[in-house]
Amino acid sequence: VRAPAARVGDAVAAIDTPALVVDLDAMERNLERMAEFARTHRMRLRPHAKMHKSAAIAKLQMAAGAVGVCVQKTSEAEVLASLGVNDIYISNEVVDPAKLARVAALAQRVRLAIAVDSALGVQRLASALAQAGSSMDVFVEVDVGHGRCGVAAAAAGMLAQQVVAHGRSDGGMRFAGLQAYQGRAQHLRGPDERDAAIRHAVALVRAAQAAVTAAGIACPLVTGAGTGTFVHEAASGVYGELQVGSYLFMDRDYADNQPDDSALRFEQALFVKSQVMSRGHSHAVVDAGHKSHAVDSGMPAVRGQALDLLGCSDEHGILRARAGATLPALGDTVWLVPGHCDPTVNLHDHYIAVRGGLDEGRVEAVWAVDARGCVS
Amino acid sequence: VRAPAARVGDAVAAIDTPALVVDLDAMERNLERMAEFARTHRMRLRPHAKMHKSAAIAKLQMAAGAVGVCVQKTSEAEVLASLGVNDIYISNEVVDPAKLARVAALAQRVRLAIAVDSALGVQRLASALAQAGSSMDVFVEVDVGHGRCGVAAAAAGMLAQQVVAHGRSDGGMRFAGLQAYQGRAQHLRGPDERDAAIRHAVALVRAAQAAVTAAGIACPLVTGAGTGTFVHEAASGVYGELQVGSYLFMDRDYADNQPDDSALRFEQALFVKSQVMSRGHSHAVVDAGHKSHAVDSGMPAVRGQALDLLGCSDEHGILRARAGATLPALGDTVWLVPGHCDPTVNLHDHYIAVRGGLDEGRVEAVWAVDARGCVS
Repeated sequence: VRAPAARVGDAVAAIDTPALVVDLDAMERNLERMAEFARTHRMRLRPHAKMHKSAAIAKLQMAAGAVGVCVQKTSEAEVLASLGVNDIYISNEVVDPAKLARVAALAQRVRLAIAVDSALGVQRLASALAQAGSSMDVFVEVDVGHGRCGVAAAAAGMLAQQVVAHGRSDGGMRFAGLQAYQGRAQHLRGPDERDAAIRHAVALVRAAQAAVTAAGIACPLVTGAGTGTFVHEAASGVYGELQVGSYLFMDRDYADNQPDDSALRFEQALFVKSQVMSRGHSHAVVDAGHKSHAVDSGMPAVRGQALDLLGCSDEHGILRARAGATLPALGDTVWLVPGHCDPTVNLHDHYIAVRGGLDEGRVEAVWAVDARGCVS
Repeated sequence: VRAPAARVGDAVAAIDTPALVVDLDAMERNLERMAEFARTHRMRLRPHAKMHKSAAIAKLQMAAGAVGVCVQKTSEAEVLASLGVNDIYISNEVVDPAKLARVAALAQRVRLAIAVDSALGVQRLASALAQAGSSMDVFVEVDVGHGRCGVAAAAAGMLAQQVVAHGRSDGGMRFAGLQAYQGRAQHLRGPDERDAAIRHAVALVRAAQAAVTAAGIACPLVTGAGTGTFVHEAASGVYGELQVGSYLFMDRDYADNQPDDSALRFEQALFVKSQVMSRGHSHAVVDAGHKSHAVDSGMPAVRGQALDLLGCSDEHGILRARAGATLPALGDTVWLVPGHCDPTVNLHDHYIAVRGGLDEGRVEAVWAVDARGCVS
């Protein structure tokens, strides 16, 4: 019953609304731009698949040079692994024993890594790995200013010691380095603010590295960074791996950031196609609300028209025209640029991937959002 | 790969997190309370299935006396109809010809109704029904203060005339009355404010009824109302049918409304079960963020503990303890009361339905969120 909004070969005009549409040409340019940045800067690239939740896209990223992908959840790792993605890092903590048993089972089938930030988490992971007889890389997460998960920099040495102590001669845990993501810095509007936040993060990473070294343990890798700040992590000299996600699709929130380097712009490649379903005298109503696009980072923008989405409810969005602009007519197409790409993708079952632009193009592929709803 | 978070018979403690959990005892009391209200007030009850998107729940509501359900989208109607729900009102406009062809096809299989607010919509619906040879009820939507869809009250007569003019001797459109939902009034905090908003809506409904009557057309039914205001619509004397949805599960936003009648309280029956996955000195992090619960109406509340969710990101929520309260420990369960039930349900694939309470109960049923993601 739940067919995709279009079939391969359909014209863009035939895509049912609302639908999650990818401009493939723009996405591929973004893909290559970031891959080239990582090559040029000799950084490992491990894009965050929590954003796209698609095995097809993960494989495109790996074909372009990514070493693997990050995910945030055990169930995301399970789904992507079942579809052939063979190098996955759960860049997040898992402390539930039943879930850790699934993690340990998965580590028998693919190359798997995970983050820890507590002694209890280390103990439980060690038990699960011993039970399953499997091995995996473990990163100690350091709070580098985000104020969410992670230990204080000074405590990283002690936790790394616990990871090492729980290693087994036949495998088990391998201490792989530090997880150091500053999520809040991504959305600071000015490049100077982002630079300052990452300078602070880098200082904390150095302190954590020193604590690990003082414990007599080598620290092979520091992994982190996001689309808003990766140029700063890359310039730091301490990060070795980039976990960028949103660069591939972009969103209104990231577009609102002033660029660090105008030569390194990413293009908007993700849209929600909507249709005007009702017209008032001074407003138009589109058939897409916050069940079609996430509003946690604010309203979507409108592509190519001087229109503002004043607000939305579950299945409606209310458009006003700016001074001098004309409201679209009943039945007209309106392309929304989502406020935040990750949770927008998570609302949809399929991507409609278009080649040749949104005005004249055709549907080249329909991809499942494979790990949609995988929150556990 | 995407198994539900629990199986029938599991203890509540065994439910994987995050998970969408229904307290069945509370839900059934809400179900009966609203059914009794409608019986007592001799109102037709047509609950809004856009909230729960479940055929199993729609059937429970109809078994308790509901005449059918509302939905907001064609694809929701298709999914629920395919699962045996046989009386569905799309309380919203559809103007796309391809979608109207699906509406007309569906009208051959179940009792179907729809709303209109434009002459173009009426013409296109008439064409689709003629093509399919099917019939359905049509409501003219009136803007009764919401400022979204619907014609002005004075224009209702003309649009009703167009509906009647497009009827065919062998069927087609039947003018069924007025759609008159004041969505904004639902969330006004004080009962006096809600009363005033619905008094204004009722005045507009009376004006629209007069316009229809002046056009020589009988107006069989006025349908509308929501969980925040239904006592006012019921008292108005003009509404004949209630479209309440959220009463069944409730949410933090509706709980924040001061009650109209304290004897008519609905209980919180929908929760997101989450787990503490990281602990800082002064905060705890749960494994549920805005991919597990919608934040368009604000943060979730925490059930039974003096904790506040300060904020959340995609997969994390940050908890602080109120003065004198204790933060939960790593691995502890935290029950979140979603800010807004409808879009929260739409994030999940399954309901885990618990009998005997959230502390000592067991899983009695696992229901699919059948129409999840049906935005088209």
